[in-house]
Amino acid sequence: MTDYPFVKGHGTENDFVLLPDPDGSVHGELTAERVRALCDRRAGIGGDGVLRVVRGEVYGADTPWFMDYRNSDGSVSEMCGNGIRVFARFLQLTEAATGTIAVGTRDGVKSVVFEEDGRITADLGEPEVLGESTVSVGDRSWSALHVSTGNPHAVAFVDALTDAGSLVDEPDYDPAVYPDGVNVEFVVRRGERHVAMRVHERGSGATRSCGTGACAVMVASALADGAGPGSTYRVDVPGGELEVTWTDDNRLLLTGPAVLVATGTTDL
Amino acid sequence: MTDYPFVKGHGTENDFVLLPDPDGSVHGELTAERVRALCDRRAGIGGDGVLRVVRGEVYGADTPWFMDYRNSDGSVSEMCGNGIRVFARFLQLTEAATGTIAVGTRDGVKSVVFEEDGRITADLGEPEVLGESTVSVGDRSWSALHVSTGNPHAVAFVDALTDAGSLVDEPDYDPAVYPDGVNVEFVVRRGERHVAMRVHERGSGATRSCGTGACAVMVASALADGAGPGSTYRVDVPGGELEVTWTDDNRLLLTGPAVLVATGTTDL
Repeated sequence: MTDYPFVKGHGTENDFVLLPDPDGSVHGELTAERVRALCDRRAGIGGDGVLRVVRGEVYGADTPWFMDYRNSDGSVSEMCGNGIRVFARFLQLTEAATGTIAVGTRDGVKSVVFEEDGRITADLGEPEVLGESTVSVGDRSWSALHVSTGNPHAVAFVDALTDAGSLVDEPDYDPAVYPDGVNVEFVVRRGERHVAMRVHERGSGATRSCGTGACAVMVASALADGAGPGSTYRVDVPGGELEVTWTDDNRLLLTGPAVLVATGTTDL
Repeated sequence: MTDYPFVKGHGTENDFVLLPDPDGSVHGELTAERVRALCDRRAGIGGDGVLRVVRGEVYGADTPWFMDYRNSDGSVSEMCGNGIRVFARFLQLTEAATGTIAVGTRDGVKSVVFEEDGRITADLGEPEVLGESTVSVGDRSWSALHVSTGNPHAVAFVDALTDAGSLVDEPDYDPAVYPDGVNVEFVVRRGERHVAMRVHERGSGATRSCGTGACAVMVASALADGAGPGSTYRVDVPGGELEVTWTDDNRLLLTGPAVLVATGTTDL
């Protein structure tokens, strides 16, 4: 394999290696081995995942572009709430995408809007609120709301974000409620319709940001406040600031920054 | 600032952002802020440090090229044993450097050799052996040899590399012996003139490799074995394999791989 192009970018410090591959000919069946090599933070370029940019028709999608998302361990994944903004930023800069666009993903077609202030909004669909359970770190435990936003979340309100310790280890949860594991969010209130969170993602540990987690946190906060659908919250994550709107028709709109920092070629 | 070129590379997974800047005009006084932005592993390109590639005359050095090395925190540093191989690989690929070259550094002129097997050797100068002290992790402690190879090291032989735990926390050492802190290496024997090490670097924590640390480990091992100067050891590090020769005239030659993985432009 000779050199091929890449772009590095991030959304609230959730970072990705983008692989421009319009007709799917550059990478063919992108191997897990190559994804791991690209995402390796010391021997590779480094990233939380790979976003391959492919024309929709290659995947039988009825959209101009398809986001072929892979986790850093090489596994295939349906969607990424921060990644789709970075993907859209790439289309904006290279394809002059503007206004509202439709992006194909393994989780269906997603609507993405370029906001006038430079941020990007993605429609992440309808949340499901599934009841309460308990999460714990060391000898402390909290009640947590089970919210599904494409993947499972346990949202726990705490007195201070430091209560959950370093989050180096995975918080304990009820495996009967979450047989496939869970992303755990710890939340504090910062002001009216303004919260801050830390997150422990299953398989990844503590991360700088989690888009679907911010959405789950917003839903739990809006329910606790009696705000419900039809409200907008600011959600601070370690890597920046997100905004989540829960629409009257029960959809979650995630708004945030997306930055491309480097472009080049690699032979990884 | 518009886009400027960069290259990403590593030596035994000690990784660097190279900045080609022959006449020093691209970056002028390279700021600590820019170094931190480039080395940021999520919002930037990511690296353990920056290697600016500048002509020697810009720094008043009597060598064709000068390695302007910065730590990832933005501070200026004299030398980097793994970095100078990556720096030399860049000169080999872009300037057709070959054979033996002289590279200017803040620690003086270093001689670098391109080996026939593809590896690169750097002469890191004379070691100083400065006596014994004690290092500890949790409730375990070991005798450690104080070896200076440009910077201070405490080398402790252990029964198993896992004895030192996760090395998340800095090992304890005698501040009277090491007033400016110390890099701590834990070593096991793997065979004849073959050892393996883990390292905790002051200011950086556990890293995948430390070139001067591998040299200190070799000196401690050769002294323990009665091999002394005039011997060669293989030193396995978490990120790969290094070879250290302690010459009859008391110089340390560090040999290892150097890989460039990506090239491009950034506006960080």
